[in-house]
Amino acid sequence: MRTVYLNGDYVPENEARISIFDRGFLFADGVYEVTTVVDGKLIGFDGHIERLQRSLKELDYTYKVEREKFLTIHRELVSRNSLDQGMIYLQITRGNPDDRDFEFPPIDTPVTIVLFTQKKQVVGTATEVKGLSVISIDDLRWGRRDIKTVQLLYPSLAKMEAKTRGADDAWLMQDGFVTEGTSNNAYIVKDGKIITRDLSKDILHGITRKSVLACARLLQMEVEERPFTIEEAYTADEAFSTSASGFTNPVVTIDGNKIGSGTPGPVGDKLRALYLEENMKAAV
Amino acid sequence: MRTVYLNGDYVPENEARISIFDRGFLFADGVYEVTTVVDGKLIGFDGHIERLQRSLKELDYTYKVEREKFLTIHRELVSRNSLDQGMIYLQITRGNPDDRDFEFPPIDTPVTIVLFTQKKQVVGTATEVKGLSVISIDDLRWGRRDIKTVQLLYPSLAKMEAKTRGADDAWLMQDGFVTEGTSNNAYIVKDGKIITRDLSKDILHGITRKSVLACARLLQMEVEERPFTIEEAYTADEAFSTSASGFTNPVVTIDGNKIGSGTPGPVGDKLRALYLEENMKAAV
Repeated sequence: MRTVYLNGDYVPENEARISIFDRGFLFADGVYEVTTVVDGKLIGFDGHIERLQRSLKELDYTYKVEREKFLTIHRELVSRNSLDQGMIYLQITRGNPDDRDFEFPPIDTPVTIVLFTQKKQVVGTATEVKGLSVISIDDLRWGRRDIKTVQLLYPSLAKMEAKTRGADDAWLMQDGFVTEGTSNNAYIVKDGKIITRDLSKDILHGITRKSVLACARLLQMEVEERPFTIEEAYTADEAFSTSASGFTNPVVTIDGNKIGSGTPGPVGDKLRALYLEENMKAAV
Repeated sequence: MRTVYLNGDYVPENEARISIFDRGFLFADGVYEVTTVVDGKLIGFDGHIERLQRSLKELDYTYKVEREKFLTIHRELVSRNSLDQGMIYLQITRGNPDDRDFEFPPIDTPVTIVLFTQKKQVVGTATEVKGLSVISIDDLRWGRRDIKTVQLLYPSLAKMEAKTRGADDAWLMQDGFVTEGTSNNAYIVKDGKIITRDLSKDILHGITRKSVLACARLLQMEVEERPFTIEEAYTADEAFSTSASGFTNPVVTIDGNKIGSGTPGPVGDKLRALYLEENMKAAV
């Protein structure tokens, strides 16, 4: 039985309940972050807190995220749940007014704050050795994917479509170009150059993406931030994805096409190693 | 204190609580319907039940909606809350598995079912006399607006943007054409012809829309179902919107431009009257 955090209290997970009027439930009016835990320490914590604050601001929440407060909650949850490897999920919604209304509730309505842990092996996984198979699928998400909202129905459907078709994940396509994966950023490598979509409202501004690209530059790898087509991906030398809990994961087939030799490539592997090394040093 | 329905029980509204792991809360994995009540009777009930079943099916829910079961719940809520005029809100989500996962939970995971009443004057409102002012704003919603999901953050933001700019509502624009309002379908009238966007994945297939168009045909009015531009709307003779709880509502200004004489037009007024007459006869 996990202990989770809900609006100031640490409670058993089966007692953590919210009002049916919560705007997270009725309007998907909520944002979230997932911070990875390795050896009981938080990876990229400051990046997640900064992005959380940005997501809230973009949606006109007035709530101010206090780093120390959230660091304490994260650490308390790690401790109470003896979490060695896994994630901490954090969600903030625009609270639960007395009734359902498209209009925002009064500005003094308290936000709802939920955090919980998830145990998961993140270092030394089968996936980093085996790689992922992905399919491409239309990107039907809303137009502000830079805001990390809980409007995750489409990524969830896309993931299920991938599973149904015998794949692990889906890369989403817009106007012939890859935007990103269902819950990760997407990369290809061609002639030694790392290519990944440039930041815009079309994709999530990955915390891991930022750090992995910094690692690439440390390793003096060339990085090109631009949209790439799915056909470019088919003929790439290598492909991989990045996410908070996946670090870098090799993508070995796309729509049934083997990428490079069809095995994890050296660029992703090097980046994963350096990413982990650098981020473990900086973990809090 | 309202009595609401939650997963088989009638409970006081402040005791109606759901798990933080509910997929409606974490993934916006839920659909809804709003049925209007007049004189304690349900308007368009069968249409709402059919659309609910369709929404669920499109999202691969296996749950079968039983008309009689839901009719009983609706009537019970009307009775327990002495509801004369207003709405009944119904939401179904993919339940609350033990943990958060993009993948759907096991197929035998019970759905979450929530219904609650909202008192609201729906007949003889100020709006039907005064009309609405609307602004146009980009439609940034996801690509399956024909499915009535709880991914309502953008419509909510658009509504707030309208309020901030001194208007009542927003009409959403895609590639220069109006899709619909934030929670209603959109219509213009030009030279006696009613023009409204044709059904597709771009818009909600309004229950009220269907009935109002049937009324228009009864009145031998000409109806053209096709996309229209916002410029066409500016120079229309009349404009209006339809929704379950608004019936037809006149739109008297768009982006500050007076529509026709800037007062409610005769076509919308006639349709509203016939819509109410026909639907009150059929109310259950």
